[in-house]
Amino acid sequence: MNCKNTKKLTFLDSTLRDGAQAQGMSFSVRDKLEIVKALDRFGVDFIEAGAPFAGPKEVQFFEQAKQLKLKNSQLVAFGSTRRKSIAAQDDESLQALANAGTSWVAVFGKASVLQVEKILETDKQTNLSMIFDTVEFLKQSGKKVIFDAEHFFDGYIADRAYAAECLNAAANAGADKIVLCDTNGATFPMQIDEIVKQLFEQNPDLYKKTAEWGIHTHNDRGMAEANSLTAVGNGITHIQGTFLGFGERCGNAKLATIIPDLLLCMGYDGKCRANLARLTETARKIAEISNISIKRNEPYIGVAAFAHKAGTHSNAVLKLPQSFEHIDPRSVGNERRTLTSELSGTSVILEKIKKSHPGTKITENAAEKLKTTLKQMEADGYQFEGAEASFDMLMRSVLGLQTDFFTVPAYTITDTLQQSGTATAQAEVCVSVGGRSKSITAAGNGPVNAFDTALRQALEAFYPALRKMHLIDYKVRVIDGGMATGSQVRVLVSSTDGENVWSTVGVSPDVIEASKIALIDSLNYYLAYFA
Amino acid sequence: MNCKNTKKLTFLDSTLRDGAQAQGMSFSVRDKLEIVKALDRFGVDFIEAGAPFAGPKEVQFFEQAKQLKLKNSQLVAFGSTRRKSIAAQDDESLQALANAGTSWVAVFGKASVLQVEKILETDKQTNLSMIFDTVEFLKQSGKKVIFDAEHFFDGYIADRAYAAECLNAAANAGADKIVLCDTNGATFPMQIDEIVKQLFEQNPDLYKKTAEWGIHTHNDRGMAEANSLTAVGNGITHIQGTFLGFGERCGNAKLATIIPDLLLCMGYDGKCRANLARLTETARKIAEISNISIKRNEPYIGVAAFAHKAGTHSNAVLKLPQSFEHIDPRSVGNERRTLTSELSGTSVILEKIKKSHPGTKITENAAEKLKTTLKQMEADGYQFEGAEASFDMLMRSVLGLQTDFFTVPAYTITDTLQQSGTATAQAEVCVSVGGRSKSITAAGNGPVNAFDTALRQALEAFYPALRKMHLIDYKVRVIDGGMATGSQVRVLVSSTDGENVWSTVGVSPDVIEASKIALIDSLNYYLAYFA
Repeated sequence: MNCKNTKKLTFLDSTLRDGAQAQGMSFSVRDKLEIVKALDRFGVDFIEAGAPFAGPKEVQFFEQAKQLKLKNSQLVAFGSTRRKSIAAQDDESLQALANAGTSWVAVFGKASVLQVEKILETDKQTNLSMIFDTVEFLKQSGKKVIFDAEHFFDGYIADRAYAAECLNAAANAGADKIVLCDTNGATFPMQIDEIVKQLFEQNPDLYKKTAEWGIHTHNDRGMAEANSLTAVGNGITHIQGTFLGFGERCGNAKLATIIPDLLLCMGYDGKCRANLARLTETARKIAEISNISIKRNEPYIGVAAFAHKAGTHSNAVLKLPQSFEHIDPRSVGNERRTLTSELSGTSVILEKIKKSHPGTKITENAAEKLKTTLKQMEADGYQFEGAEASFDMLMRSVLGLQTDFFTVPAYTITDTLQQSGTATAQAEVCVSVGGRSKSITAAGNGPVNAFDTALRQALEAFYPALRKMHLIDYKVRVIDGGMATGSQVRVLVSSTDGENVWSTVGVSPDVIEASKIALIDSLNYYLAYFA
Repeated sequence: MNCKNTKKLTFLDSTLRDGAQAQGMSFSVRDKLEIVKALDRFGVDFIEAGAPFAGPKEVQFFEQAKQLKLKNSQLVAFGSTRRKSIAAQDDESLQALANAGTSWVAVFGKASVLQVEKILETDKQTNLSMIFDTVEFLKQSGKKVIFDAEHFFDGYIADRAYAAECLNAAANAGADKIVLCDTNGATFPMQIDEIVKQLFEQNPDLYKKTAEWGIHTHNDRGMAEANSLTAVGNGITHIQGTFLGFGERCGNAKLATIIPDLLLCMGYDGKCRANLARLTETARKIAEISNISIKRNEPYIGVAAFAHKAGTHSNAVLKLPQSFEHIDPRSVGNERRTLTSELSGTSVILEKIKKSHPGTKITENAAEKLKTTLKQMEADGYQFEGAEASFDMLMRSVLGLQTDFFTVPAYTITDTLQQSGTATAQAEVCVSVGGRSKSITAAGNGPVNAFDTALRQALEAFYPALRKMHLIDYKVRVIDGGMATGSQVRVLVSSTDGENVWSTVGVSPDVIEASKIALIDSLNYYLAYFA
């Protein structure tokens, strides 16, 4: 359609700056360095890494970052225009920016009269000088400068001439990139389309004055990604966002969506195009470091992004992948999942075995046996969609591969409240590995946590590699609510070793028993594949 | 901008049909009825509720749904076009649709040559007849018919004439609404814009042949919401989605985003416009029933959607709300959260107390105290949407009304496995009523059930009326998945005495402790109001 898709695009990731503004988000220096390495490996062009004057953690980060040998990315230090009553060279935060040790710096300045008058509490002309002086000072300090025109779209709607003047001030001072920001996330794609078109039609000189134009959007109306694509459709080639969409309020444009949209589906060029097959892995790594979980249904990278449940759909996908798949999942490092539910037949099961255990021979008989087992377990309340590792352990047992790396012959869990105090939980767990046993007693936040802690501690004596593995999610679902606390309970556990993520399931009327089954499956899966 | 925003829009929620296709999603009949009630109260025009022939649960649902007195919504039964080798009137699933007891039905049919030839394995003409016959049969059965043109956009790009013929077949047979579906979620807004424009320009008669045109999008490229808005910008007035975006793979267009986008920010009209202040409450209710959590940064409805971290932004927001807020959070029933400001929620609390305890006098001071308690509890992970009885118990305590009809000074719960057998759970619970105590030991299906059983048996000695009350639902949710089995757990319990249904909540890192809190609240609520 109307894509000018021969252009080369550049991407800036602001996870460590705008992303760190999100509620509940905080990064250690080590976290930050790890995220920088992951983004560099994936090939993001610019990494906005925070304000070098914001605190000792930031100072330390920029110091240590100098040692990183980045292959693809440029680090960008972030700040704002000079204060209204001080010369640029006397502003300590601008001095810190100039001394941060990065070739690139980004500064934001206001591009809205309302913001200038009500928030900065100054006049329009002073703001223009603040922009010009700041960019000029940083250029004179030898920096490449990205100017973020904060509140540009709201500012343009209110006073288009002044908004353009702000951009002009940055361009005249030599900004290398100028970024149009939808700071409040209030703009719709049709408005972005109209404004960007009009801006460049009415200011043709302005467009040529700076090397590259950028877009920076927020998701308050659910339009961050669409707005970015719309800007690109109008000649903008620099896209800012955060890899997983973290950011203040409703977050920033999600690069994990925009990058494959543009480079894979729309045919644009960009440095990270060569690494698209690492998209899912990079996303999971960043999620892991940030201690958040990726939504199952996240485009491209979610575990359910290519999952097919309904009988007709999963059969259609086996007949002709593109019938319900918009891209090959492997192109973004993800995979197709045909969900095992009562709906699917033997062909889906055989396909799964072929895929996950290539080369292994499976008899009709074994497949039939697996199908019967599955049906029984599903009738008991098991559900293997979203618990692929438990399904794999079932396949292993049918194929005659090892599944039990240990057993738990006995445990006792107690949860006690005395004299109206606080309840305390404790678990004694006995594990057995190749005839040798070990018992460990541990306390915990409740009985499941106590059991989990004791089990791991006991097993680490036999399998020290288990230290690398930990749980990242734990979900409990009552299957038949009608029986209330006597109903079957389904526990879903997700685990990681930092690289791989897998999920297991357990079902029982007893929440501890169900948790135990899922935990044991998870540990065995790790020992079978990654230890 | 280019919005034709005088038009009246209609919305169809498919949480119970397309949403139920999502990985891990499954609804009981009671869940479905509760979701229907919530959507009706909010004012969604149509509720697509599943296929009336898919199984006994669906049959039961449609039977019970006939008793609901819906104020705003039309229930829609869902199916597909007739099978290729059978007349419409002989197709059992079409007969089931005709007999489902709803005025409206929705049927999907293929609008793509590829799908017709490779998946249906039939010819183009047969598919056109299948569409025509199906719609005609349903119209003759007295139904209002929504025709979903599956794979329309992919089909149009490959063969625009045939895609239009499919629509035409449905229109000629009298379809009341025809819905353009982006089934694979592979279309970008600029393509939607171009295709919808072109379709209606090149087929002006077609546009007039049916009463209303609709859009149905999926989110595989992160464009579901933007695509829906783009279609509306081109004259489409019926929008399909799911309230929270559940759906196969990456999900459907999220009505909780699109509805405020269109009705609040873009000025379109629609039935639920009057209820926008209930948006957040409705979303949380549906999330609670579905046992999923809403992302913190979800547009409009997330707890962080209007959160401002301490610093320049939260100061700016206090100076001038629109500086970093695109709408007033209260207009969608959400609230601003800043670290430095106190929320002005006292009036809302006073309102609630006046409503549920009419005639009771409440001091400013008491309301203030309740607000502080609430804030603390919410910070701990409590959520009172869907747990109105627990909220009521809090109000009672502030009003000085009785809340504790008994106490539980001590309990011991054990869960034991010996010699690789089956785990057994047992609880000893001590209750105290007016200075008299009673201890009961009971076994159960797991520790929570054992605790529940012992608690009730001990209390029935004092309050025989408790025999009439029982639990009907028990839900467990891990609040912060990041800490896995050490995270906070929220337990939601629903109880009934056969006439009334009420729900209570408990939060703790210990699932038993959280269950205990919710169970005790539930028993006290019953004793306060119904015993």
